[in-house]
Amino acid sequence: MPSFKKYRVGKKFKLADVDPGESPFLEGDEASQGAQLDALAEELDELQNLLHAEGRRKLLLVLQGMDTSGKDGTIRWVFSRTSPLGVRVNAFKAPNDNERAHDYLWRCHAVVPRSGEIMVWNRSHYEDVLVPWVEGWIDEDEVRRRYAQIQDFERLLVETGTTVVKCMLHISKKEQRERLQARIDEPDKRWKFQMDDLQVREKWDAYQRAYEQALCSTSSSHAPWHVIPADSKRHRNLMIAQLLVSTLRDMKLALPPADPSLKGLVVK
Amino acid sequence: MPSFKKYRVGKKFKLADVDPGESPFLEGDEASQGAQLDALAEELDELQNLLHAEGRRKLLLVLQGMDTSGKDGTIRWVFSRTSPLGVRVNAFKAPNDNERAHDYLWRCHAVVPRSGEIMVWNRSHYEDVLVPWVEGWIDEDEVRRRYAQIQDFERLLVETGTTVVKCMLHISKKEQRERLQARIDEPDKRWKFQMDDLQVREKWDAYQRAYEQALCSTSSSHAPWHVIPADSKRHRNLMIAQLLVSTLRDMKLALPPADPSLKGLVVK
Repeated sequence: MPSFKKYRVGKKFKLADVDPGESPFLEGDEASQGAQLDALAEELDELQNLLHAEGRRKLLLVLQGMDTSGKDGTIRWVFSRTSPLGVRVNAFKAPNDNERAHDYLWRCHAVVPRSGEIMVWNRSHYEDVLVPWVEGWIDEDEVRRRYAQIQDFERLLVETGTTVVKCMLHISKKEQRERLQARIDEPDKRWKFQMDDLQVREKWDAYQRAYEQALCSTSSSHAPWHVIPADSKRHRNLMIAQLLVSTLRDMKLALPPADPSLKGLVVK
Repeated sequence: MPSFKKYRVGKKFKLADVDPGESPFLEGDEASQGAQLDALAEELDELQNLLHAEGRRKLLLVLQGMDTSGKDGTIRWVFSRTSPLGVRVNAFKAPNDNERAHDYLWRCHAVVPRSGEIMVWNRSHYEDVLVPWVEGWIDEDEVRRRYAQIQDFERLLVETGTTVVKCMLHISKKEQRERLQARIDEPDKRWKFQMDDLQVREKWDAYQRAYEQALCSTSSSHAPWHVIPADSKRHRNLMIAQLLVSTLRDMKLALPPADPSLKGLVVK
């Protein structure tokens, strides 16, 4: 297996240094890649069961990326074998009036994973810095303040038993054009198309800069960011599945100790 | 395919008339049953996608049954191929202080499915009649009042676009003994065992009567109850998967109409 190290964000990380078209985690032909993903998805189910049985720790997967970068598809394929009993997804949209009436981390804190659970955030608290910064609603000082708050928030989660895995799905501008065009042209994809996506696309470069700042400001040893080359959907799925399985293996999950008073108990 | 009719609860339904050991939906050998369930689980995923794309209607699956009747297992296997993007599970426990400070339907209403979603209730509002009635905390008048309220609540859901599927997982007292004993004896199942389950088991007959009353009082044409013979886990899974697939097929789900202004649009 290739190393994740190159894709883990450090202080001097440059987004432009990662080619969205790379596919280091793709090996073998298409059929064997499908089999690998299936095997990882099944192992993820076993590990999730153990996480649930252990009942103490939690895992939070944060998925960020430009429109069409494949956040939904990642969830569909990486969690194709896990049960909805133990995996929950929260999709963050633009904040509504009630959410805006609170601090921006309020709605996030409400949906952190519970013990034994994997929670997936489809977009996240990072949207509450990326969007207002690119749109010019907040200044550089406020950006710095928010990233410090976000680091504190993530440290709280980690110190109280949550493993935080953050992935930025990195696609090229060209790949996005093709995916948006497919949503317009192909009848069975058309329901996914939103006219707003074209306006956001016009700010592509500003968003790339904002992402680089987000990644560098908040990739910590307790909650590192991984940049996932995502022009290839199969590569994206395999790399994230591999990362999750590695992370859960490293947690050394185990069944809780048996209650000794159960020994010899007979049900009538 | 056998008919669901025999298992749909009508006014003069007797729980004792359904043998928990029946398995009318089991056909062929074990391998072919596994393949059937897998095919149904995949069709359920396709139908769920369509429900999501259509984005108007919702489906609520209510699972009730005695301890060990297989509510978790049903969710694990019936939804083994669906994505957590479109299927959510809510497990109802004994109400906490905050929940008890509201009417008993308050916490249920908070977790009804949203448009395009399948929501599974692992236990439900029915616990708030079954338990207090068997424990003697409410009288017969209050039971009647609650079942009328529950019917009104379910009618609201149905009239606002939710298909309600209610399944009672019906096991025998003997089967429960074996499953509880297995939780005590088998190290990898021990974490599921709760001492309280033995006390509830002592009230088996009272719970069977309470269930019969619940089923007869609230099986309506808009939200019928189905009794699922569940001593065989494979039968239970196949019957419920079949019921869900039939229900979703009957909904005649379709992609939303395309926005004509998209025709010829080219992404730059």
